[in-house]
Amino acid sequence: MTNEKKLSIFALGGVFEIGKNMYVVQYGDDIVVIDCGSKFPDENLLGIDLIIPDITYLLENKDRIRGMVITHGHEDHIGAIPYILKQINVPVFATRLTLGLINIKLKEHKLKDTVVLCEIHPDSHLELGSLKLSFFRTYHSIPDCVGVVIDTPDGTVVHTGDFKFDFSPANQQYPDLHAMARVGEKGVTVLLSESTNAEREGFTASEKLVGESIEECFQRASNRVFISTFASNVNRLQQIIDAACNTGRYIALLGRSMVNVVKVASELGYIQMPEGMLIDAREAAELPRERVAVMCTGSQGEPMAALSRLASSTHPLMAIEPGDTVIFASSPIPGNEKNVAAILDHLYLLGANVINSGMHVSGHGSQEELKLMLTLMKPKYFVPIHGEYRMLHRHRQLAESVGVDPERIFIMRNGDVLEVNRKHAYLAGKVPSGHTLVDGSGIGDVGNVVLRDRKHLSEDGILISVITLSSQDNALLFAPDVITRGFVFVKESEELLGDVSRLVEATIEELRETANDWTWSLLKSSVKEAVGKFLFHKTKRRPMILPIIIEV
Amino acid sequence: MTNEKKLSIFALGGVFEIGKNMYVVQYGDDIVVIDCGSKFPDENLLGIDLIIPDITYLLENKDRIRGMVITHGHEDHIGAIPYILKQINVPVFATRLTLGLINIKLKEHKLKDTVVLCEIHPDSHLELGSLKLSFFRTYHSIPDCVGVVIDTPDGTVVHTGDFKFDFSPANQQYPDLHAMARVGEKGVTVLLSESTNAEREGFTASEKLVGESIEECFQRASNRVFISTFASNVNRLQQIIDAACNTGRYIALLGRSMVNVVKVASELGYIQMPEGMLIDAREAAELPRERVAVMCTGSQGEPMAALSRLASSTHPLMAIEPGDTVIFASSPIPGNEKNVAAILDHLYLLGANVINSGMHVSGHGSQEELKLMLTLMKPKYFVPIHGEYRMLHRHRQLAESVGVDPERIFIMRNGDVLEVNRKHAYLAGKVPSGHTLVDGSGIGDVGNVVLRDRKHLSEDGILISVITLSSQDNALLFAPDVITRGFVFVKESEELLGDVSRLVEATIEELRETANDWTWSLLKSSVKEAVGKFLFHKTKRRPMILPIIIEV
Repeated sequence: MTNEKKLSIFALGGVFEIGKNMYVVQYGDDIVVIDCGSKFPDENLLGIDLIIPDITYLLENKDRIRGMVITHGHEDHIGAIPYILKQINVPVFATRLTLGLINIKLKEHKLKDTVVLCEIHPDSHLELGSLKLSFFRTYHSIPDCVGVVIDTPDGTVVHTGDFKFDFSPANQQYPDLHAMARVGEKGVTVLLSESTNAEREGFTASEKLVGESIEECFQRASNRVFISTFASNVNRLQQIIDAACNTGRYIALLGRSMVNVVKVASELGYIQMPEGMLIDAREAAELPRERVAVMCTGSQGEPMAALSRLASSTHPLMAIEPGDTVIFASSPIPGNEKNVAAILDHLYLLGANVINSGMHVSGHGSQEELKLMLTLMKPKYFVPIHGEYRMLHRHRQLAESVGVDPERIFIMRNGDVLEVNRKHAYLAGKVPSGHTLVDGSGIGDVGNVVLRDRKHLSEDGILISVITLSSQDNALLFAPDVITRGFVFVKESEELLGDVSRLVEATIEELRETANDWTWSLLKSSVKEAVGKFLFHKTKRRPMILPIIIEV
Repeated sequence: MTNEKKLSIFALGGVFEIGKNMYVVQYGDDIVVIDCGSKFPDENLLGIDLIIPDITYLLENKDRIRGMVITHGHEDHIGAIPYILKQINVPVFATRLTLGLINIKLKEHKLKDTVVLCEIHPDSHLELGSLKLSFFRTYHSIPDCVGVVIDTPDGTVVHTGDFKFDFSPANQQYPDLHAMARVGEKGVTVLLSESTNAEREGFTASEKLVGESIEECFQRASNRVFISTFASNVNRLQQIIDAACNTGRYIALLGRSMVNVVKVASELGYIQMPEGMLIDAREAAELPRERVAVMCTGSQGEPMAALSRLASSTHPLMAIEPGDTVIFASSPIPGNEKNVAAILDHLYLLGANVINSGMHVSGHGSQEELKLMLTLMKPKYFVPIHGEYRMLHRHRQLAESVGVDPERIFIMRNGDVLEVNRKHAYLAGKVPSGHTLVDGSGIGDVGNVVLRDRKHLSEDGILISVITLSSQDNALLFAPDVITRGFVFVKESEELLGDVSRLVEATIEELRETANDWTWSLLKSSVKEAVGKFLFHKTKRRPMILPIIIEV
């Protein structure tokens, strides 16, 4: 008898893109979701706060979902959790720190009491229906990262999560090579491995080097030190705290996410700090300058974050002074270069000693590390994940170079379904996938029409013409009112707007004379066309034109 | 008797920023303007096409302007010319190729017949009132670049233009070290020198290396080669043509500015190409693939440029095929990284062999070259120009390192006036300066109010409520109409918009009952407040709310 159940694997987010990671492993009626991330919109998605995966498939298969496993606590792996859990309330499995960070989000969304959170450890075993889950410890720029092993009746699926092989990690959480070797030796049917740095040659440098450089800077600085990094890079935070400790500095925190993460990570024991070392930003003013270090948010140039406000001298609690050192323990994510450069400039102007290179290493493994993972796992089939196409493509080449059969490597788009049985693996159709846009409290209610209108409004504004007609004979009762926003400066354009009002009037008169059975929609389109042409001729701009007709 | 006339120098654009270069040297009643550039708006300036200098000072001193000298033909030095010449028609002095490129712009703006263009050579001498101008040849990524020497009764001012010291230049236009040495030996009172690469150590590599790398690529490619670079980088274009020539390839051009520049530069003798080598894009289809090279625009990921359309398979004339080579002979300008990355990804997907590193060198001198210029010129006073503050700051440090007295270095903002006499130099007040925004055919008519409205509209759209009141008793004649654009998808929000209509109605009723002497403006603000609160509560969004009142 053949087994009618099938093993299928697909991404709802995370391939052909960076961020919003979400992978699904299904065997028969049992579904496990791995990760639930968000990503930030680019500037074309006007007014949008966040992008999360389209979970149509999960909603349609709600009852089959046995749980959600989270590999680690970064936004691109946990950012969508509150939005998704509102729609599908399934148990969430994650390590201790990851759960701590998820909890911050659940509190903000007032979901704390309605969801089931289960703590796992690298040596935990879970049975979720017919799926047996185990884990292995990996190293990444946040503690408590795991890779996921899913044993199914038709083979074993491994998802690496994010990783590098840091053999001298900052936090003593060594990547568990032996556990990985055991998994590989038992046999991996499908490996999903991350591709973020697949374009980088060699081996990513150890986080420890960053710690040493930071400590040197702290040593040399004769004034205060401000240092910014991602709050979620908990290992980096610990190294900064160690550097401060070794150089006799107190630590102050600026920025909401910095305060939140340090609080949670300290409570859970992932950040160690001597009693009394953490001070309030206000206390810092009373200490000698060389005894103060400030950890702040804003390393990506985010306009509302602490560093940005320090640079523009608008922070309510502290101000940069000449001689202060400012360290960027980060490198700009593509798209943020300009904002970061503007902040650098302001800091130089304030007389700060700015250090923005040599204070960062990536949390992701480079080519040799990706090859190491592939070699440890010896997968039968390989699916590169986490990355734009060119990274997946490069990862495929790396897999081929360590002996994976090219025919058994699958570059999948979000929604592409890989079906695997004991004999072979093949692409088998698609499930719905895409971007769900979050705007304010609305999830997925802003679509193309709304975005197109925002784009149009953003470029040339709007011109509204109010047309009041008599219900008896369709005659204009008043001269048409013309109102604009975002088009021209009204006080200087009275003549232009007067011309528009007369043009609308003339258009209506002409219609009344020539067209027998004119409709409001004909009137609107005639006004739009006439006014649009006139304005483009006069200004070379194309505002949105909105005729409003009132019949009295 | 002392001389009552004063020498003053200031920037109207180009310091504390990259682009829109414009410098003014005035002695008594004689003004010379150096360069007339534009820059591109960042994404905050919604709908704006271009930024040009604020020329209030020049308009107020129209009759004193003796001429405008242009150092070379790049956009950040010539881009504002058509807009400025419309307002102040002064003679423009520039070298042959620079004039050719200016002419393209004047034709587009239909200004060709109204302006005076004077061709200069590196050995020209001009007398503009009391100002005596001479020049020296510099090397930059476009031919025919000059530095400007202005002799005044109170000293000599030197403006370097853009430069690097390329001793094996692609175009045989060697930087004229001897002329520079002579200028320095005669004595330079004030040096204005460019700072673009002041943060880069060492010496910028020669353009010749790029030519060699490109030729190697052409040699290796067995299919067609597409190569993109700035059209204005005429020296690079020549090297690409040489590489094609040496490897037996024909050249096709894609992109309007590429066609324009190649045409003008060829006519004027700055681009040499064997007869018959230039082919039409359509002809390329009939040639063996290894005989075709295509020079195209779009190296910065500009969405409408040739490369972008090739990458998205929407170019009307050509399509990328697997095995084609695509070379980026450029590096992304800060802010363009994301667009470039998206194009890379599409090209990989099309199966192209993408080469995006090692095919570009900067056209600007690095630290050792800036020091060489400072050493040749031996200026009494030094003003670093062309750059954000951190670059100017670094350039100041370089000047100090080669012996310029720190007290005699002036970092000036746009509009800061440096006055110089035989004894000393000092900052003496400001002239008006700033960004003039070009939007369509409007120059400077879009200001903060319009931009703020565009920003507001772009984020959450607009909600218009039409309120029709009886002129007798201010009673509502109809239920208020509610119209939105860019806020929510209307079909799915009928209930919400119905609630808004009822809320507006209730607000009006309440006002009629409670306020004795209510005005339209009170009515409008009450509606705005009530609806704004309601919508934020329901959607966490803040659309622009526009009540329109009609009295019948």
